[in-house]
Amino acid sequence: MEKKGTLLSYRPDVRVFDATLRDGGLVNDFRFTDEFVKNLYQANIKAGVDYMEFGYKASADIFPEEDFGPWKFCKEEDIRRIVGDNDSDLKIAVMADVGRTDFRRDIIDRNESVIDMVRVATYINTIPAAIETVEYCHEKGYETTINIMAISNDKEKDIDEALELIGQSNVDGIYIVDSYGSIYPEQMRDLADKYLAVAEKYGKYIGIHAHNNQQLAFANTIEALSRGVSFLDVTVSGMGRGAGNCASEMMLGFLKNPKYNILPILDFLEKDMLAVKESGAIWGYDIPYLLTGQLNQHPRSAIAATKAKRTDYRKFYVDLFDYK
Amino acid sequence: MEKKGTLLSYRPDVRVFDATLRDGGLVNDFRFTDEFVKNLYQANIKAGVDYMEFGYKASADIFPEEDFGPWKFCKEEDIRRIVGDNDSDLKIAVMADVGRTDFRRDIIDRNESVIDMVRVATYINTIPAAIETVEYCHEKGYETTINIMAISNDKEKDIDEALELIGQSNVDGIYIVDSYGSIYPEQMRDLADKYLAVAEKYGKYIGIHAHNNQQLAFANTIEALSRGVSFLDVTVSGMGRGAGNCASEMMLGFLKNPKYNILPILDFLEKDMLAVKESGAIWGYDIPYLLTGQLNQHPRSAIAATKAKRTDYRKFYVDLFDYK
Repeated sequence: MEKKGTLLSYRPDVRVFDATLRDGGLVNDFRFTDEFVKNLYQANIKAGVDYMEFGYKASADIFPEEDFGPWKFCKEEDIRRIVGDNDSDLKIAVMADVGRTDFRRDIIDRNESVIDMVRVATYINTIPAAIETVEYCHEKGYETTINIMAISNDKEKDIDEALELIGQSNVDGIYIVDSYGSIYPEQMRDLADKYLAVAEKYGKYIGIHAHNNQQLAFANTIEALSRGVSFLDVTVSGMGRGAGNCASEMMLGFLKNPKYNILPILDFLEKDMLAVKESGAIWGYDIPYLLTGQLNQHPRSAIAATKAKRTDYRKFYVDLFDYK
Repeated sequence: MEKKGTLLSYRPDVRVFDATLRDGGLVNDFRFTDEFVKNLYQANIKAGVDYMEFGYKASADIFPEEDFGPWKFCKEEDIRRIVGDNDSDLKIAVMADVGRTDFRRDIIDRNESVIDMVRVATYINTIPAAIETVEYCHEKGYETTINIMAISNDKEKDIDEALELIGQSNVDGIYIVDSYGSIYPEQMRDLADKYLAVAEKYGKYIGIHAHNNQQLAFANTIEALSRGVSFLDVTVSGMGRGAGNCASEMMLGFLKNPKYNILPILDFLEKDMLAVKESGAIWGYDIPYLLTGQLNQHPRSAIAATKAKRTDYRKFYVDLFDYK
């Protein structure tokens, strides 16, 4: 495949997708103040961001509501409390985890909802269930994506088969997800080409959701972009589980489409995000995340080590081999 | 050009070059304790690192000795106090800044010195002076490199001409230096190809020295490596001016040559580097560095903002346009 676009021009197919509340919510159990959420919503609108994900559409039968803030569940009335009828160009998304969302009960007709898009997160072994959710949401009128997580541990053949199955569904987009932050740019370019081949065949678009364990989230995102990937997940200050994500302020300073503007995000960083950091929420690159990323492992042990403020890096590293 | 090497094999031409004391010394005026320097030296030997740069060979006529620690000057006796006769495979390097080193006085015959390599740092408008220094050092028996700084603001034609001039000298290696941390991976691959074409013509090698303003230091280093660049500058914990450098612990966990070992660096991080961070030395990615990197500017304003703990990011950003 050919490189798409240049560093001076821009591609009209590109969409910036803010996932701060959803991936960042994994850091603080979705306990954001309404003021924070409102300010983020306004900042995204002013910055020209295309989509804002408010959180998960999790089932309250599985997750006790008292254990989480509202954005674990994204009830219609909670979103409307922030956005009203969303009289803006910013589209609103939620994420449905396969097996953790009661979609037939909780996802209503789009024309009655302020939500525009449902992203379905799945592992490769639950693709049929993901497709079932997507078909349902699509028929309800939503834009949809399928986000296959943790592919760095999947076999090529399985990824190919999954992409074929998804390609034949009515989904709009397919996401490359580097859950462990273990993928290197040259691998990301190959993955992008693989996903894009399916996208071209079936008329879908491709998105990228990167993690920053090896400080490669931004690099992997712009490399995927250069191949033709168009939906770019970002979070302000990279807020997200573990090492976090590709930062909005990196991407908005990189993209050349004049609709995008970094200044509202700098305001938000200064006025809202610093307070969240100072309140004790912990995310972002650190040595334990680097090491799980290098070893292509789930970051759970690194999250635990970081919470415990462990600095016995050698022991942490040697212990990781027990997880292999 | 073709991609060189794969993610599973390794290239025997690769050299890991530790610049912790030299670039990190810009953070703390080269005031490292002897214990720190000895432990770094031992860690590098055990980790299989190929070169260790002890600092600058600055002229004491220009820089008052009382204003700096010993590694601004790298006197023979100071290095020997750490390494004795350096009975190891680790080679010892120093940096000579064009116009700031009295090389005819301070650089002695290699067979009387414990130093193996002199790296000459230059801007593009002082290449003839850099070559004069290199020719002198080469004749004294040293390995030499020329490191052209701040090329992100230079014109292609000037870089081409500089590379031709350098190619015709007796220098051993030429470094790509991203002083402002403003270069993106696709630009880095093109630069690598350009430098490598000259290297091939004249029998030199190419090195890479990246800065982390946009969290691209590691990405740019491994992308340059994949094109055929072989000397890879790293610093432990990325310690270096401003946003710092490509971290040793990232590179050693990436390279597949079994001679390299991340564990001694993890030990050093834990036992020595954390204390330096806690003592108040400041480096590493932060928003002001991102913004000067995006705008392809010298990081001096970001260094000042970070020291002053400024978080008025919008104002900082808007003010940067005055420097253009």
